Amino acid sequence: MWKVVWATLLLLATVCAQRGYAKETKGAPKVGHVSVVIVGGTGDLAKKYLWQGFFHLYANQVSSGYSFSFYGGGLLPKDKATPFLFEALKGVVCPRELSVERCALVKEQFLKLAGYWQLKTSEDYQALGNHLTEQLTQEGLVEAGRLFYLSVPAFAYADIAERINNSCRPTDGAWLRVVLEKPFGHDFSSAQLLSTQLGTSLKDEEMYRIDHYLGKQVVSKILPFRRENSKHLDPIWNKHHIERVEIVLKETLDARGRIPFYDQYGVIRDVIQNHLTEVMTLLTMGLPANMSDVKEVLRNKLKIFSALQHLDRNCATIGQYQNYNLEVQEELNKTKEYYSLTPTFAGIMVHIDIAQYEKMPIILTSGKMLDERLGYARILFKNDIFCVQSHNSVHCKPKQIVFYFGHGTLQYPAILVSKNLFKPDLMDTEWKEVTEHKDVSVLGMPISDYYVLTPTVQREAYAELILHIFQGRKDSFISTENLLASWGFWTPLLHGLAKTSPRLYPGGADNGNMLDFKLLGREVTFANEAVIMITQDHMGGSGARSFQVMQGKYRSAEMVSAWPEELIVRLAGDLQAAAEKAVREGGRFHLALSGGSSPLALFQRLAHHHYSFPWRDTHVWMVDERCVPLTELDSNFRTLHDHLLQHVKMPYFNIHPMPVQMNQRLCVEEDSGAMLYERDINQLVNASSFHFVLLGVGYDGHTASLFPGSKLDAHGDSLVALTESPAKPHQCMSLTLRAINQAQKVGVLVMGKSKHELVTQLSRVKDNPNKWPITGIRPTSGRLVWYIDYDALLG
Amino acid sequence: MWKVVWATLLLLATVCAQRGYAKETKGAPKVGHVSVVIVGGTGDLAKKYLWQGFFHLYANQVSSGYSFSFYGGGLLPKDKATPFLFEALKGVVCPRELSVERCALVKEQFLKLAGYWQLKTSEDYQALGNHLTEQLTQEGLVEAGRLFYLSVPAFAYADIAERINNSCRPTDGAWLRVVLEKPFGHDFSSAQLLSTQLGTSLKDEEMYRIDHYLGKQVVSKILPFRRENSKHLDPIWNKHHIERVEIVLKETLDARGRIPFYDQYGVIRDVIQNHLTEVMTLLTMGLPANMSDVKEVLRNKLKIFSALQHLDRNCATIGQYQNYNLEVQEELNKTKEYYSLTPTFAGIMVHIDIAQYEKMPIILTSGKMLDERLGYARILFKNDIFCVQSHNSVHCKPKQIVFYFGHGTLQYPAILVSKNLFKPDLMDTEWKEVTEHKDVSVLGMPISDYYVLTPTVQREAYAELILHIFQGRKDSFISTENLLASWGFWTPLLHGLAKTSPRLYPGGADNGNMLDFKLLGREVTFANEAVIMITQDHMGGSGARSFQVMQGKYRSAEMVSAWPEELIVRLAGDLQAAAEKAVREGGRFHLALSGGSSPLALFQRLAHHHYSFPWRDTHVWMVDERCVPLTELDSNFRTLHDHLLQHVKMPYFNIHPMPVQMNQRLCVEEDSGAMLYERDINQLVNASSFHFVLLGVGYDGHTASLFPGSKLDAHGDSLVALTESPAKPHQCMSLTLRAINQAQKVGVLVMGKSKHELVTQLSRVKDNPNKWPITGIRPTSGRLVWYIDYDALLG
Repeated sequence: MWKVVWATLLLLATVCAQRGYAKETKGAPKVGHVSVVIVGGTGDLAKKYLWQGFFHLYANQVSSGYSFSFYGGGLLPKDKATPFLFEALKGVVCPRELSVERCALVKEQFLKLAGYWQLKTSEDYQALGNHLTEQLTQEGLVEAGRLFYLSVPAFAYADIAERINNSCRPTDGAWLRVVLEKPFGHDFSSAQLLSTQLGTSLKDEEMYRIDHYLGKQVVSKILPFRRENSKHLDPIWNKHHIERVEIVLKETLDARGRIPFYDQYGVIRDVIQNHLTEVMTLLTMGLPANMSDVKEVLRNKLKIFSALQHLDRNCATIGQYQNYNLEVQEELNKTKEYYSLTPTFAGIMVHIDIAQYEKMPIILTSGKMLDERLGYARILFKNDIFCVQSHNSVHCKPKQIVFYFGHGTLQYPAILVSKNLFKPDLMDTEWKEVTEHKDVSVLGMPISDYYVLTPTVQREAYAELILHIFQGRKDSFISTENLLASWGFWTPLLHGLAKTSPRLYPGGADNGNMLDFKLLGREVTFANEAVIMITQDHMGGSGARSFQVMQGKYRSAEMVSAWPEELIVRLAGDLQAAAEKAVREGGRFHLALSGGSSPLALFQRLAHHHYSFPWRDTHVWMVDERCVPLTELDSNFRTLHDHLLQHVKMPYFNIHPMPVQMNQRLCVEEDSGAMLYERDINQLVNASSFHFVLLGVGYDGHTASLFPGSKLDAHGDSLVALTESPAKPHQCMSLTLRAINQAQKVGVLVMGKSKHELVTQLSRVKDNPNKWPITGIRPTSGRLVWYIDYDALLG
Repeated sequence: MWKVVWATLLLLATVCAQRGYAKETKGAPKVGHVSVVIVGGTGDLAKKYLWQGFFHLYANQVSSGYSFSFYGGGLLPKDKATPFLFEALKGVVCPRELSVERCALVKEQFLKLAGYWQLKTSEDYQALGNHLTEQLTQEGLVEAGRLFYLSVPAFAYADIAERINNSCRPTDGAWLRVVLEKPFGHDFSSAQLLSTQLGTSLKDEEMYRIDHYLGKQVVSKILPFRRENSKHLDPIWNKHHIERVEIVLKETLDARGRIPFYDQYGVIRDVIQNHLTEVMTLLTMGLPANMSDVKEVLRNKLKIFSALQHLDRNCATIGQYQNYNLEVQEELNKTKEYYSLTPTFAGIMVHIDIAQYEKMPIILTSGKMLDERLGYARILFKNDIFCVQSHNSVHCKPKQIVFYFGHGTLQYPAILVSKNLFKPDLMDTEWKEVTEHKDVSVLGMPISDYYVLTPTVQREAYAELILHIFQGRKDSFISTENLLASWGFWTPLLHGLAKTSPRLYPGGADNGNMLDFKLLGREVTFANEAVIMITQDHMGGSGARSFQVMQGKYRSAEMVSAWPEELIVRLAGDLQAAAEKAVREGGRFHLALSGGSSPLALFQRLAHHHYSFPWRDTHVWMVDERCVPLTELDSNFRTLHDHLLQHVKMPYFNIHPMPVQMNQRLCVEEDSGAMLYERDINQLVNASSFHFVLLGVGYDGHTASLFPGSKLDAHGDSLVALTESPAKPHQCMSLTLRAINQAQKVGVLVMGKSKHELVTQLSRVKDNPNKWPITGIRPTSGRLVWYIDYDALLG
């Protein structure tokens, strides 16, 4: 096969001379040889996109001085597989810029450079490795690199990578690039495992993970467009001007024929975790100073990932088209009783917790069996104009930028900018403005209301990416950090949804408004009553969940009990009611809060759902604090700060961290921090009686930082004391029983199955504060309320 | 005339007996007599609305047991005026519920009860007073009250009130009510003066200031509607759900014939300061627990006023219809060179600085000579739905509530609620739902998309209010506190706009989009380029304002100079650039800020215009502090807190107030506050070198809290010191020259004409820090930049 390379070069020289390319070809340095191996070279993807892509690469590089050889690899023996390979190869078509004659010639050469190699066993890889090296030597070629494209199921990746590493590494100085197709894992831990496995065989820079969305011309134009139009975009690319961002991929097809794969993944793993998430990061990341600095691009992307707000199952709605389950039963050989919970539709709202985008809704949605095929990202701007009387003029209309990936009414990839926004700059010749178009409407506006940009030449995503692999442009691929960051973000939601029944939808136009969803604060719900739902009975699950809140008695005090989420809703509501009452009566609400993990959900609920909470008139005090600097992550105040204070507008003066650090040292008796805090309480809190003290309780019965075995009586009349914890960090500062019992209301929050035993035990013991400090909580004239979730109460 | 009362009652008894009303009339207790005096009783307003209103009152109360007498007062002698009065009286029409016969009868009685009284001199009032008392005695009537309606120019109020007080007060136990029509002053000080003048003659509860908007049925329904629908409204009546509020009064008429009045006032004083502002407070105030508690209603209204964000001239756009100036020249006998700057159109954006409404735009707009007559308040809600495929269903449409005052396409008063929002409750029988309507569009939506409520019986605002005066319902009138709060809010804007040229507009449909305006952060500008503008040349003013920013040298350092606003824009821009650079390079920006009044505008600019400022990575330090508690208003930190920190999202840990208060005492040497602050600087700021220190300079040449005559050398190597100010409070804490001169950049901001002399002086003196501390600012390796506005530079 190697002989043909020279033959080809000679041939080419002839052809080029005829067509005026002689100089480039003759003069081109022999920069080296590239061997391309498509593992799975006779598979569907290879047939449909890959050979075509590599042919484009070849046509593109034929005069560059590089020489090539192409191998399709597979499990079948050569004689059986070769016909399949040549079937795939025959179908490739030339780039439009090539003449018919030249096309025929280049294609003929390409076919001569391509062959089949069986790749089943380690020995096969060894043989391939030996062959590649021998050929180079025989032909006296300098090696540029080896490119392995793994177009095989993901479970085979680790093995193949190991074999490539063992037997097929290129000669010194040449590169190795191994291309992987999604899925890259199923969740964070499987992705991490796969990464680790691959990492034992391949270096990070040798791995090219393909997300073909990054090869779409419109997607790869997002960053350049943002840069080229930064003059217009910089002032408006923020929460103050953007009403919402929508990233949408609608499909009309079903999953038929792909069920064994699809049912393991579902729509979020299939297209949202990767394609739509990548688009989201491109739209929101900080623009790199240097657009081609791959590291800076990655760094800026990772900043977005680390600022994404945690998703719980209330941030998503999911659906499944009605026939899906039948398809699952058929393709997976399941009985008629089998129900799959795999979603084929999802609508998700994401928030980025950086000042620029805070509270700006980003909607990611995709589904199969919808009414149209369409992919786009739209940035809808807020209406910032008041039209006194010219309601029909262009500037009174909505303002938006649409990155239109293709299909839909427009049928071609484009970037559309509302004419009342700005006229986008056309910085390169790869894009042109479309000025004549048929009369269509794009996302609610007639196309004539937009400036429309489209690529001068439309190119296939795979062809683009294959060129980028050859050029080593790693910014078009998914790095390990990027991948893990994305899975890290999506995995909790996927787990949270694992047992959620998707809403069934009929498919196509019949879906009507069934899948429309509503944004409520951080939550997403279907906008209309369900028509068809898989019932819990079908699921063999634990029956319908009760949302009831129960009231009763515990340790002869009031008790409120409910499922965890409802309990937090109730407690937050009680807090707001107490706050409003206190502010109404005395202008101030004094609230003392505890550390620990249970209140986290409460803080988040207060921060993101209680918009009318009177924060301006609320003073926040600490129930207890660890003797660590306030900025450290295990400081109670830091937790409170990050999860609550940072999200609400409270005057600086109303925030009262405990002075555990004074004179640059921690909790030294002589610094009198406890006394200082006590003085502040006496000065600001009426009768030193907090309106609400929120406590937790530890497994050992401790509350605040009052631990069993310590002499609580020794605190005397103090309100604040230094105490000693049995766990690290040992030193703490805490409100005393006296300070707590003086409060008008004390709430004790107890959550989780792991507290069940404690709850049972406490229900039986008598008050003995030195053994069980929590039993010392007996407000002298205030109310004590236990908030205990069903897990803790019922086990 | 008094005889007719009895005649009437007899007559009534007869009529009522015939019509079945005998019982009420006969049995009604004689609850007392009410004398009504309309001062200006033959004027336009009286003719058009007042007599009609009082006739309605009479018809309404004729069977209540009250008796009445009515006087039209005026400057003309009785014989000349009486025909005019009876002209006005003849035109009154009966309420619809009266039959024709009864109408004729009641009207006849009313005419008999009404007469003219000349009210020109003090003696006239004395005579009236005597007459009223005599009549009561003669007829043996118990007096219920006296109602004076002053329908005269405002300049006459104080005199008339004095005369009423001197001569016309009712007999013991009866009430006096004096009704005043706007204008109530021209700005805050004139309104205050008028209030004080009136206050010497009348008690507050005796004054009834009419704003006829409060008598409009839709306006007076705003609070009850909010209460009745609070279940639906409470969760959405806030910044998170409301996109904007629009309060709009469009007129088609011009000001012809009213120019002598109008040209003194203009559109803001004429309808925005009163009518639209009242509507705004009703829409936004906290709902009173008791809707009929006048004091609580007022208290809640005042809370809104006190939370309104200060308006400067950038918060408004103003216009004037093209013919207005001609009308002014004619009606005021001015030459062709005279140009009036009085606006006949204004578009204004208001923000309320309470958590519930923060940053929610409230648009107030009104104009004459527009395309239609229309008044409404609209609450437009944010789009909180994502429509996957049913873009035409009702829930994908905009959601709004419209309080429609009348006219426009609908032609009747109504409250409209989008059907995709909620179905409003109809709590009383005074309102009904309209279910059949002609096919019109109201504010962008077909009427069929709304639930429409309308009053069962339409009533005239004046008739309503006259009834409320009679009933003593003070919540329908403007209290002194309310009035002054409103003027307090509007006066700075009115003064700010006093020399601004309004955009000229042709009037009617020809205005096109000329008056549309754009909201940019807190600013409002016309959305389109001006077509016609009064040029400065016409104004005889000081010529076009230069927006240039000048750069030069001052005291051998860099200087930036510009008009005040542009200077602040530049300084804020420089600060952001410095912040971004520092964060890029080291992850942190350390900024030290001064107190004083000059930086206020800077703080506001940073808070409301620099959305992308990296606050999260910025540490704010104080240049100096007064030894007062941080919460006090003259604390530098408090100023910084209220104008900047409270508005941006900065971690608690990044805020570094100076520890002037320790151990509950202020700036005591032994508490080592200065040393503590120095330690914090050393610990957190790299090389103790701030990135940016912003200074001011005092008339005596002091900067930070380093005052002339103090031995600055004594600070040695300290970075922070306690210092002594010549003014109160004397004790201060301050960064030392050393700390400042170590900074990477030092900006000195000098603004205002009053600093001109200082600027001149400083330009001549040599460095002498003990005499002129500011001359000690010589950064060792950083940059010094003087920011001096043209007023300070050029005088």
